[in-house]
Amino acid sequence: MATIADIGVSAGINVLTAIVFLLAFAFLRLQPINDRVYFPKWYLKGMRDSPIFSGAAVQKFVNLDAKSYLRFLNWMPAALKMPQDELINHAGLDSVVYLRIYLTGIKKRTQPSRNEKRLRKPIIMWAVSHSLKIFVPITILAFAVLVPVNWTNDTLESMKVVHSDIDKLSISNIPNGSKRFIAHLTVAYAITFWTCYVLLREYEIIAKLRLRFLASEKRRPDQFTVLVRNIPPDPDESVSELVEHFFLVNHPDHYLRHQVVYNANKLADLVEKKKMQNWLDFYRLKYERNPSERPITKTGFLGCFGSKVDAIDYYKSEIEKIVKEEADERKKVMKDPKSVVPAAFVSFRSRWGAAVCAQTQQTINPTVWLTEWAPEPRDVYWNNLSIPFVSLTVRRLIIAVAFFFLNFFYVIPIAMVQSLANLEGIEKAVPFLKPLIEVKPVKSFIQGFLPGIALKIFLIVLPMILMFMSKFEGLISQSSLERRSASKYYIFLFFNVFLGSVITGSALEQLKAYLHMSANEIPKLVGLSVPMKATFFITYVMVDGWAGIAGEILRLKPLIFFHIKNFFLVKTEKDREEAMDPGSICFDSCEPRIQLYFLLGLVYAAVTPFLLPFILVFFGFAYVVYRHQIINVYNQQYESGAQFWPSVHARIIFALIVSQLVLLGLLSTKDFEESTPALLVLPVLTFWFYKYCKNRYEPAFVRNPLQEAMRKDTLERAREPTFDLKAYLANSYLHPVFKGGDDDDKYSVVDDDAWMDEEVIVPTKRHSRRTTPAQSKQDVSETLSLPLETVREER
Amino acid sequence: MATIADIGVSAGINVLTAIVFLLAFAFLRLQPINDRVYFPKWYLKGMRDSPIFSGAAVQKFVNLDAKSYLRFLNWMPAALKMPQDELINHAGLDSVVYLRIYLTGIKKRTQPSRNEKRLRKPIIMWAVSHSLKIFVPITILAFAVLVPVNWTNDTLESMKVVHSDIDKLSISNIPNGSKRFIAHLTVAYAITFWTCYVLLREYEIIAKLRLRFLASEKRRPDQFTVLVRNIPPDPDESVSELVEHFFLVNHPDHYLRHQVVYNANKLADLVEKKKMQNWLDFYRLKYERNPSERPITKTGFLGCFGSKVDAIDYYKSEIEKIVKEEADERKKVMKDPKSVVPAAFVSFRSRWGAAVCAQTQQTINPTVWLTEWAPEPRDVYWNNLSIPFVSLTVRRLIIAVAFFFLNFFYVIPIAMVQSLANLEGIEKAVPFLKPLIEVKPVKSFIQGFLPGIALKIFLIVLPMILMFMSKFEGLISQSSLERRSASKYYIFLFFNVFLGSVITGSALEQLKAYLHMSANEIPKLVGLSVPMKATFFITYVMVDGWAGIAGEILRLKPLIFFHIKNFFLVKTEKDREEAMDPGSICFDSCEPRIQLYFLLGLVYAAVTPFLLPFILVFFGFAYVVYRHQIINVYNQQYESGAQFWPSVHARIIFALIVSQLVLLGLLSTKDFEESTPALLVLPVLTFWFYKYCKNRYEPAFVRNPLQEAMRKDTLERAREPTFDLKAYLANSYLHPVFKGGDDDDKYSVVDDDAWMDEEVIVPTKRHSRRTTPAQSKQDVSETLSLPLETVREER
Repeated sequence: MATIADIGVSAGINVLTAIVFLLAFAFLRLQPINDRVYFPKWYLKGMRDSPIFSGAAVQKFVNLDAKSYLRFLNWMPAALKMPQDELINHAGLDSVVYLRIYLTGIKKRTQPSRNEKRLRKPIIMWAVSHSLKIFVPITILAFAVLVPVNWTNDTLESMKVVHSDIDKLSISNIPNGSKRFIAHLTVAYAITFWTCYVLLREYEIIAKLRLRFLASEKRRPDQFTVLVRNIPPDPDESVSELVEHFFLVNHPDHYLRHQVVYNANKLADLVEKKKMQNWLDFYRLKYERNPSERPITKTGFLGCFGSKVDAIDYYKSEIEKIVKEEADERKKVMKDPKSVVPAAFVSFRSRWGAAVCAQTQQTINPTVWLTEWAPEPRDVYWNNLSIPFVSLTVRRLIIAVAFFFLNFFYVIPIAMVQSLANLEGIEKAVPFLKPLIEVKPVKSFIQGFLPGIALKIFLIVLPMILMFMSKFEGLISQSSLERRSASKYYIFLFFNVFLGSVITGSALEQLKAYLHMSANEIPKLVGLSVPMKATFFITYVMVDGWAGIAGEILRLKPLIFFHIKNFFLVKTEKDREEAMDPGSICFDSCEPRIQLYFLLGLVYAAVTPFLLPFILVFFGFAYVVYRHQIINVYNQQYESGAQFWPSVHARIIFALIVSQLVLLGLLSTKDFEESTPALLVLPVLTFWFYKYCKNRYEPAFVRNPLQEAMRKDTLERAREPTFDLKAYLANSYLHPVFKGGDDDDKYSVVDDDAWMDEEVIVPTKRHSRRTTPAQSKQDVSETLSLPLETVREER
Repeated sequence: MATIADIGVSAGINVLTAIVFLLAFAFLRLQPINDRVYFPKWYLKGMRDSPIFSGAAVQKFVNLDAKSYLRFLNWMPAALKMPQDELINHAGLDSVVYLRIYLTGIKKRTQPSRNEKRLRKPIIMWAVSHSLKIFVPITILAFAVLVPVNWTNDTLESMKVVHSDIDKLSISNIPNGSKRFIAHLTVAYAITFWTCYVLLREYEIIAKLRLRFLASEKRRPDQFTVLVRNIPPDPDESVSELVEHFFLVNHPDHYLRHQVVYNANKLADLVEKKKMQNWLDFYRLKYERNPSERPITKTGFLGCFGSKVDAIDYYKSEIEKIVKEEADERKKVMKDPKSVVPAAFVSFRSRWGAAVCAQTQQTINPTVWLTEWAPEPRDVYWNNLSIPFVSLTVRRLIIAVAFFFLNFFYVIPIAMVQSLANLEGIEKAVPFLKPLIEVKPVKSFIQGFLPGIALKIFLIVLPMILMFMSKFEGLISQSSLERRSASKYYIFLFFNVFLGSVITGSALEQLKAYLHMSANEIPKLVGLSVPMKATFFITYVMVDGWAGIAGEILRLKPLIFFHIKNFFLVKTEKDREEAMDPGSICFDSCEPRIQLYFLLGLVYAAVTPFLLPFILVFFGFAYVVYRHQIINVYNQQYESGAQFWPSVHARIIFALIVSQLVLLGLLSTKDFEESTPALLVLPVLTFWFYKYCKNRYEPAFVRNPLQEAMRKDTLERAREPTFDLKAYLANSYLHPVFKGGDDDDKYSVVDDDAWMDEEVIVPTKRHSRRTTPAQSKQDVSETLSLPLETVREER
């Protein structure tokens, strides 16, 4: 058992690592040469120019202004300064709501009220003083109530077991059957109610944010469009004719046009191949710099094998070949009726018509003519649009089984690889390396390193495997793919990291244990082990959490890659733009990790409150870092309007229930079984709360209310009676390869100037009632649009 | 352990009981005086006149035709003769689909093909020869494969345990670890696949039946109407105005009219009180028969206490008082805005408009303006229409908890009552009875009888308790109330009858056992006990199943009540009509009982196949009896269009999974643990099959496809362009008390003559493609309407 001093040392090391990272970041970000690595978002928005073109030659690359180094931490307040509405404008709702996950972890206020803004309190102070959300009150409560209760016993001392000061702070220090457990019970109740209250408020706020976001948006193609899948084959009509007839008959007043979906996967591959252009550029640059020598390459794999040829000529001819192939394929796809998949994007005259079609069942067979609200054009995952219904259900079964095995049996192949990848195995496979391997230091290095590497590689590629699984399942938008992968990853983390560390043993052994244990023994086992693992998890939070976050802000990989590209490939400003790798939030792997910290925090809150401050620091630090990254770095590939919130909510609830069950198990091993009925009430209430929230708020994330659609339609018709919607929607849902590849950004959601002239409130009949309190509940978006307007006025 | 001889005796007794009941029924139904008890359905349809008015005086009451007694069993083929489509016409889809539950248990053919009808094979032969559904093939398979495999061992003999011939037929007779278990494994696979295949076919057929039923219906108010609940309060407008404005704005092209809902519960009570008329009639009749003496009654409780008054005068004045009160209340309800609840029935110009409104979300707050397809007017449960959203979720939680306690702890209050209701308790409470009780035979009778009576009473009132719970949950239609009660009752039967008999012990003790047992011990425990309980369940099937069904056809209670009423109250033909109590299927308590037999059949199929013939006989017998009752007796109170099928399907799947788990547990105790992975595949596949069916077919039972709605709208507009829909819908959704009480039957679904002139197929554009095979899949209802038409032509 680690003492507080041990923890202190560990914390010190990790804090030091984090500070080193931060210093490195602070230094690197000030160098103009790295500007595109640390501020790509601003470049993409066209709001920042390369500093390279201004100032002296040295200053192009190195920042010589000594003063700026003194203020090396001032990115932090800067990151916190941008108000929420501006941030939504800047980075989209997904990012802002993602940040709120951290906020839910730490603080309460969503927007500084006007007063505080005038007072210009230091922003850090504001963040701290208002840190009132889930964990801050819980930490305070736990330290105020539980720490004294735990500390003022001497069970551990009297039992003469080896223990540390941390254990004295934990529930282990209370004698069996003591009445002091009532304090823990009460705290568990307080935690549950507080967490549920925060979650409820948060769900409400985010639902409102989403609705306001959707309502204040400019006209967007997906508002008018519905994705139709599983169009049944028809012997007489092509897919296009069939779709037109079907909707002309069944939605006669609303149907406008449709866009069939081409199976352009092969074409997309060819477009992808055109990246060979990079090599051509590389060799051309090489030749320019050193005109005396024509660069030479080999035709084989990665330019390492095969016959030698002139590199420039070779790539030129290759590219010409591909361009020709691509043109042929393009023609073929457009002509051949077989390349049309049985899916289509159908657009309607009004948002009302689209909302109706997306929410209703079209025919008596519920497996054909499936309609759903079309994802944003950028968000569509084109490859999956043509999967038929039966295949979808089979795929889901396969993936469910595969994921079960991945989750519980993944250790087996890794163990096999590990047993193969030993020294003898390597010596057998590549005998000529034998003399090298036999050298003592090399040998010991390999022996120490090899067994871990297979596992490490597996963990690195795990998110990719999960994403592949989700793609195989047939989801049709990037956002839903990421959400699905995140669920899988969370399940994996829960079993293999949380339970795996608590119960110690591979998931497979655990599975056996669960099967052979009774339903009330499992919480007991987990509950018994949980207090003992507190120090381990504290270290885990510091290594994985603190240092990981500090590593995130340093962006080491994009930094290196940018400079390599910049050196070898970049010729024009456009090339430089392409060399930037802004990245995005990576919801599918980051969100489950945050959830793990929620789980740890809630589980340990009533057991070992000493863990809470570490979690708090993580949330606070991560919030600042990610806010900075979202403002300056990340460029989201799509905007789903916070559709992921319901699953975030569900996972926090799940963590809460787990924490209640663990406490239940723990207390029943402590001869305090009277508590069982009192504690059993909590999971029931929590689950009911989950159901309530699901019914109350989830529809806002799935469906499109008719009232809103009608309101926007009416407004628009009044303002632009002659608008040509058909032309506007003409090519919006064409497969990206037909539009010349990289113009995804055309669909940028937040188009600042357009947003402004859109937001005019035309008084309606119902408008006059806005002042009455009863009405305001229904017209949330109307009243909500006020703060948005004020923000815009202020700018 | 019972021997085959014991079972034979028991079977003999039960068969005898059943035969006595059947003979009594056959005798009683031929007596004209009982005609209204055994054929009320025909009276209600106006297709049968009282035989009392024709023939000699004696023949009015007693059937003297000796020949008719000889054919006493001919109601059976008669019950089987009516073809399915005519039966749908006659009794509605609910009843026919209910019968199919039995059919799923026994036989395959849904309609005799034309050929067989011509051949006029004896109908029983046809039923037997085509008995191919779930259990017949399973029985044959089990007897062909498992019985020889089980029989040709001598484990039980060599072990020298007490055993019977039945045990020799069961899986107990196979030595541990024998390879013969592979036969059971194979049979389990065969059973699973066969059951799933039958269920799939059945779901498909019933979905088609439902859609055909909905499509072939006459114009009905609920096709155009949507129920709107949780209308938010508005300070400026009344509910009626608010509804009108909301729908005029948001469904401008489709809204037609609306009907607000009055809180008429008090009024309904007053109307109910008018039943006092019965007493007035009774005393008047008494006075007529014996004019010398004015009848006298007492004013207190049940006419037993209080001061004596002249009965006729007293009831006359009472009724006058109530009539006046009722008139006042009626005026008050119509005028007072507070008696309008925040719910309304909104009607649309077209089925399309109603379908759209019912399936879409109206406002951004998903808890207000909730829309759903309106139930039939007869099916509405008026009392629950005004419950607000939050209250609904709280009620659901309360009932969930209450039902949990009812299910697992119901023995506690019963034990308490039993301990109170002993001899000493009675003697203390009513000391003057002491001398009587102390008499020996009375004492032993009370001692033997009392403990059981509390439990018996509880079991009798259980369906009522469950129905009350469902009502408290806030469901808004009779049909959904019955479905919900049925689910609860099934859960109760599963835990308290099935598991309770297998594990022996109160549900509370079981609950403890489950909590203290591991997940793979529970199937083992159940699996180990299941073969030993075979004889018990065989007896159960005979007593509860066979004799119960025979009792059902005898209709003892309605018989007695009819004759009492007939003697005391009936004066006019209308009174006699009211004295009939046709009853209905009582889905909420009968269906779960059938499901129990499914469960027993599936569980024992691979374990003790000897039980299967008893189940088969039950299903066959029950099918004939219920078919007879549905044709001649029951009068359904509402028609939901087989909406209950998805839950029936889900329960059979549940039974299948239970049977697989039981076999899994049993085989693992038999040292045949190699089978576990092979058997684990089955529940996974079965569950996937359930999900598949749910996605594929359930929408047909919940939603209203737009294509169908549009088709009917177009047809109707072409045929009756001037139809006044507004007038047609005017009073259809008025609370029944405003329409004068008992005219519920006005809404009889199956209006024969109307049905005929509705069914004209107007050729549409898409009609020409009906002959192509691909199209037929989409136009199921069109092609399906053909057999219906042919049936009608034949009549």
